[in-house]
Order: sequence, then structure tokens, then C-alpha cells
Amino acid sequence: MSDQVLERGGQRTLDIDPDRLLRRVAELARIGADPVTGGITREGFSAADRQGRAYLMDQARAAGLTPSVDAAGNIVVRACLPSSLGDEAGERQVLMMGSHLDTVVNGGRLDGAYGVLAALEVVQTLADSGLDTVFEPVAVAFANEEGALFPQPFWGSMAVAGRLAALPQEPADHHNRPLREALRLAGGDLDALGSACWPAGSIAAYLELHVEQGPVLERSGNRIGVVEAITGRTVLTLEVRGSAGHSGTSPMAGRRDAMAAAARVVLATENLATERRLCRVATVGRLDPHPNTPNTIAGAVRLTVDLRDTDVWRMTGAEQVLRRMLRSIELSTGTEIEVVAETRSDPVSADLRLRAAIERSADGLDLAHEVLPSGAGHDAQVVADLAPIGMIFVPSLGGISHVPEENSRPEDLVAGARVLLRTALRVADGTVL
Amino acid sequence: MSDQVLERGGQRTLDIDPDRLLRRVAELARIGADPVTGGITREGFSAADRQGRAYLMDQARAAGLTPSVDAAGNIVVRACLPSSLGDEAGERQVLMMGSHLDTVVNGGRLDGAYGVLAALEVVQTLADSGLDTVFEPVAVAFANEEGALFPQPFWGSMAVAGRLAALPQEPADHHNRPLREALRLAGGDLDALGSACWPAGSIAAYLELHVEQGPVLERSGNRIGVVEAITGRTVLTLEVRGSAGHSGTSPMAGRRDAMAAAARVVLATENLATERRLCRVATVGRLDPHPNTPNTIAGAVRLTVDLRDTDVWRMTGAEQVLRRMLRSIELSTGTEIEVVAETRSDPVSADLRLRAAIERSADGLDLAHEVLPSGAGHDAQVVADLAPIGMIFVPSLGGISHVPEENSRPEDLVAGARVLLRTALRVADGTVL
Repeated sequence: MSDQVLERGGQRTLDIDPDRLLRRVAELARIGADPVTGGITREGFSAADRQGRAYLMDQARAAGLTPSVDAAGNIVVRACLPSSLGDEAGERQVLMMGSHLDTVVNGGRLDGAYGVLAALEVVQTLADSGLDTVFEPVAVAFANEEGALFPQPFWGSMAVAGRLAALPQEPADHHNRPLREALRLAGGDLDALGSACWPAGSIAAYLELHVEQGPVLERSGNRIGVVEAITGRTVLTLEVRGSAGHSGTSPMAGRRDAMAAAARVVLATENLATERRLCRVATVGRLDPHPNTPNTIAGAVRLTVDLRDTDVWRMTGAEQVLRRMLRSIELSTGTEIEVVAETRSDPVSADLRLRAAIERSADGLDLAHEVLPSGAGHDAQVVADLAPIGMIFVPSLGGISHVPEENSRPEDLVAGARVLLRTALRVADGTVL
Repeated sequence: MSDQVLERGGQRTLDIDPDRLLRRVAELARIGADPVTGGITREGFSAADRQGRAYLMDQARAAGLTPSVDAAGNIVVRACLPSSLGDEAGERQVLMMGSHLDTVVNGGRLDGAYGVLAALEVVQTLADSGLDTVFEPVAVAFANEEGALFPQPFWGSMAVAGRLAALPQEPADHHNRPLREALRLAGGDLDALGSACWPAGSIAAYLELHVEQGPVLERSGNRIGVVEAITGRTVLTLEVRGSAGHSGTSPMAGRRDAMAAAARVVLATENLATERRLCRVATVGRLDPHPNTPNTIAGAVRLTVDLRDTDVWRMTGAEQVLRRMLRSIELSTGTEIEVVAETRSDPVSADLRLRAAIERSADGLDLAHEVLPSGAGHDAQVVADLAPIGMIFVPSLGGISHVPEENSRPEDLVAGARVLLRTALRVADGTVL
């Protein structure tokens, strides 16, 4: 079916409406925008987020589609409501597409929002086409992916995937304000959270279109990124303890300088991913010395090590080598280095059949593409518990994200949505999976 | 004269009153003390500092001595007031002894205060002895040595030494409150600051007794330190500029990681004083990354490099080598490193004759001693503009200072004051200089 719909030589050519997509991206970007920096702040479940959610539902309704909000606050957009909640056996499996509407503080206009609006565009295009597909196309806006205000990132996708045990019982924000009320204002219901879970087998596939948030596509010149895997992440918070002292009166011999030890940790971390090539990337992004004054030797330094790879064994190996290097740094500097917190997420692979469908769709549009990992986390990694996932990237200008300057070329935004439509057509007819 | 006064076999043995000294140290330590941490906060020209100053003047008056306050707020304690301000020709040269009463925030009980109270003890002992000396013994408490509240450290000694041009016209504290009023409350007068200067030749010598604030004496077991020089200090504030980026999405190749570059600067700085031995000590004590979040590559890091040595040529050489290393780090990391601020103080040597007098005094008391540099700055380095200086150190427990735990053994405090008395006797009779 897809070929006859897509090939220009055929009877009809189905396409998204580029102007409508770009207009919606621009309109949504005005909600929560700072007039000075241009940055966008729509923290999940904030008032600005509610405005963004209302915008999406208005656009869906105006398009003749049916938006609904589940108990976790996720917005699900379908061509029409399922016949009855109890009648699952008679329903089609869905092809879910989407991302999230919430942002970090002073973030950009595309992270998440682009993927949601492109999914709406595809669902609308398919609904308007009158095509009958094996899988029902559904657009979703997952709630609170960033966790900027309520520090439970991936909140909505975790509820969809049934990871309820991993969510706090009474979530609260940084000011200890309860999520319960904010969720209610957004149309959710904390007491009915279980109803947001999708049953096993109900989602045939999940596709997420996103800006790359990195420099790979811009550097290569390829228009489309086909995600092979979402990298796993290990974050170790280290406390380096030495002895504070006067920087003038303490001879070099006998110092236990926590700053000098921390500097060695920074370079050892970098070394894991450069010289040793034990993991894909390794970063110390945060470092807090104490007391942090010019004329005092640092008595303690707290820092975070962030290791990422698409292979869980490589991540484990890199961490082991790092821990050995920490022991060696302790000995050479006379400090103690303790791992005071550790969080890990496993890498998640994209489905090979969905990857092939994305590549074929890009080829059909003459868009140069390449396979690359996603270094950032996405709702797709959580939905992967339930369904095969595929992710499509478009280039980020300057490779930057989570900042007001985050942007992509309009033609790349349109190209990404076209690849999503074609991939959805291939998948929705049931022949790919 | 001094030998007949000091030697136990002689007619009389002059000594300080150890209990009185320790009582005064304990009493002064209650002023500005935090009941929880035990730390002492008497920022220069604060209300607590005024209480400390009043305590000193009360003790001086009770001892039959004459305290006065000069225009800069320095307290000068003499046996009696000079006959007339205009009658300088008829006055004796003075042997000035002292330090400062002000502290850092949450500092210790001995830094400065010990030297002032020991000087008072010596002046009182000499006055009570009825001895007639060639030079007039004078105790001084220099105002605002630390500069904790009004950021003009060495304020009082700079006025005494006539460094008025280097002082701001209308000094203010960190909250922009004028020093003028605070100085008036302390008995000074900003408009008459010039009257605080001492004429050339009026000070025969300056002696300062101080806690070491470092670990050298404690480690060696010596009871007395004879300062050979106060180290010079070069403080460079560096701004390392790279590119911020997502720690997951930015490949290692092409990163311009300001944190990784700053870590290399920390180790290059350490290397100056360890492997290369180009200066005595070299420290990075302050380091502020930006944006300083776990999952963002640092876009910029500001840090301070503190280099110290007693030889100005070695300091210059160490700085030149460091600047070459910064260029090399820029090249290898793709960052830019700019020196955004630099302050320098030259090393100051102690007078060889005063050093010898201190050593002979310690020998007379059977106190093991050693020559060492002062890594910290002291009023003595400023008074050195006007007069030969000598400094005596006593051991600091744990080598620490500027913290609530700053302390020294009572027997060491007494020993230091006895060395000061004997040195004062040797110097005041005019035979040493």
C-alpha cells in the first residue's frame, strides 16, 4: 500500500502540510517564551505547560481529531475515541508517535515540541487521506519528560510503560509543592495512575522524531539521522576529601589538595573516552570546590562523572577502570575519593526493522542519512519496555540544545516530518513488523 | 644592658606575666565569638571589632599605659604620650611591636590578636621594670589587616607607611557602606589620614609575633620560627573559554571542554612548585565552572592561580613558564585562556640583625628554632617600607588558620612572648641596629 501512496509516479502522493507544521512550531514557541532571551520555559505541569497543552488540544480538535488526557497527564490524539474502554480485543494495535511539550528552564523551541507537532501533522494527514491502515496512528505528548519543576523526568512515558513502582507515591516539586494538584489542573488523576498504562501488545511500534541536540549531522551534512540506540548513562557523584590549608603557609610536600586530586579525576574521566576508548563520551560537567577561595587549598571537591555508551558492557568496563584510577589518584594525592551517589540507565536499541523503514523513507525523499546513537535520553527509551521503537533525528544548528539558541533549518524540520509520515505509512500497513 | 636583665644568673630576671597574657588572649577571644562554631568574627571596623579595640585600650589604661587612636584607626599604646606632636626632634625613635585585632569571618582566636596582646605584655613589662631604653617601646594594633568587611586589607599599616595613594579615596564595604563613618566610630578621621603616617627614621625597628598558620614548626618540633622573608604573591584570575554542549550528544572529537582545560591548568600550576620547583608554593584554590551542571560540557571556567616565593625573580620566572603552559593548553584543548585580573605583592626580607637578635633570644630560653619564610601576608611587609622588620612565629596546631579550630599550645604562646620580650630588650638598647 505504501508504495502506491508515496511514489510520485503513482496515483496519489500523500504529503504533510509544511506551512501548517512550521506555523504550529512557531505558535507553540510563543508560549512560555522570555521576551528578552528568547528562551522558552514550560516546565512540566507549570501554568505555561498547561497553555502549551491546551494549544495542542485546540489544534487537534480544529483538525477534526480527538485529544484526550490520561491519568498521568499524557495527551493522546486519535482520529476518533476507541469504541469503549473495555473493548480492547476489538481494537487495532496502535502506531504511537510523539515526544513531549515540556521544556527545561530557558530552553529551546524544538526539543520535544517538534516531535509532538510532527506526530500531530502525520496523524492529521493520515486521517484526512481516508486511508485505512492495519495499525491505528496515534500522536502522544508525554507529560514532564524533562522534570524541570517536578524532578520526576519521563513521568508520562513511565506511566504509559507501567513503571509505576519507580515513581514516588506523592511526588512534589523542588519547593515541596505536591504534583497531585498540578496534575489535576492538567487533567490527570494521581489516584488513577494505573489507568495510564498501555497493555502489553497494544502498541505495535513507537516512532519519535527529534532534533539531534548534537553536532554530528551538521558536521556530516546528512539531513536525517537514524538512531541505532539511545545511550545508557552512568552518573557518579564523587566527593574528594583532602585537607584545607592556607595556600601560602602550607608547603607543597604534605598537602592533601582536593582540587589537584579533582583535576586528575577530570582528566582520568576524559581519558576513558579519548585515549582508552572505553566508552563513547565521558564528562565532568559539575565541580564544586570547598571552601573555594583563592588563598585556601581546597579541603573537599564534589563533582559528577557522566559516562555514556550504547553498549552496557562497555559502560560497566569503563566504570570499573575509572574506579581503579580513582584508587590510584587517592594514593598519589593523599585524598579520599568516595562515590556518594550513582544513577544508571541502560542503553536501549532501536528496532532494526523500524531503522530500515526510516532509511528507506529517507531514500525515497533523496535525503542523505546516517546511523548514529542518541546521546540524550528520550521518552522512546521508556516506551521501549512495551514496544519496538524507532527514532529520527534532524540536524541542530550549532549542535546545541536546552538553550534559547536551539534551532534547526525549516527545510530540515519539514524533511524530518516527511520521513516520519513515510515511515508511519510503511509501518502502519503492517508489512514492516 | 640586656644581658644583665635577662640572664638568670644576673641581678634581676625580667619576664612577662604568662597568666596575664593567656587571660587576655582568652578574654579577647570571647568578643565576636560564635557560640556554635566557636569561630570568631571581628571584621575590621565592625561592631565586634570596636568591642575588641575597646578591650585593648581598657587593658592598656588599667596597666597604666596610654592608648591613642590615629586617623586611620590604628591603636598605638605607649608608656606615656609624646611630649608634643610638633616636638619630633626631641623624641626617641620607637621600637614598634604589634599586629592586628580584626579577623576574617568565622576565623580563629590567635591570628593577629596574639601578636597585639604579646606586644602589650612586653610594653607593660618594660614600663613596669622602669628600665630606660634607647628606643621607646610602642605596641600597635593595625586597623583592618584582613579586609574582611571593607576590602582594603593592610589599611592601617598602609596609612602608617604613607602608602596613601594606594588607598581608595572613599573606601566602602561590599555593601557600598562608606568606611568614613565606620572609621569615625572607631576614633579615626578619613580627612586627616595623612597624620597617621610616621616620618622616615621615626621607627627604629618593627617586630611582629604571630602564629605560623602553617605546619612547618609543628612538623619539625621547633618551638620558634625566625622569619627570613614574607613571600611575595602573584594572583592571576584566569577565564577559560570553551563551548558548552550536551554531555551526551557531543562526541569527544570536536569538544572544547573548559573543565578539561581548567583541570590541566590546575595541574600545570601545581607542577610549577613540585616537579619544576620554580616557586615555593602554587595553588588553585578557587574554580567556578559555568553552567556547572552534570550533563553539560562546561562552556567557561574562572579560576585563580596563587604563586608565592621569597625571591621576586623566581616569581617572575614561574609566572612566565605558567603563561607558556597556558598557551600550550589552549592549543591542545581548543579553548581560550585569558588572564582577566592580576595582583602582585613583592617579597619582603626580614632584617638580618633582627633575625640574629631573635635567634639569640630563643637560644637564651633554650627554645629550638628554625628559619622559615612566611607564606601569609602580614602588616610587617608594609611597615618594611619605613623600618627594618623582624617576625617571630610560634607553632600552629594542625598547621591551620582562619578557621575556628585555629590554635596553639599555651606554652608556645608564652614562649613566643618571652622571645619577643628578650628581642625587644636587645633591640631597644640600641646595640643591635
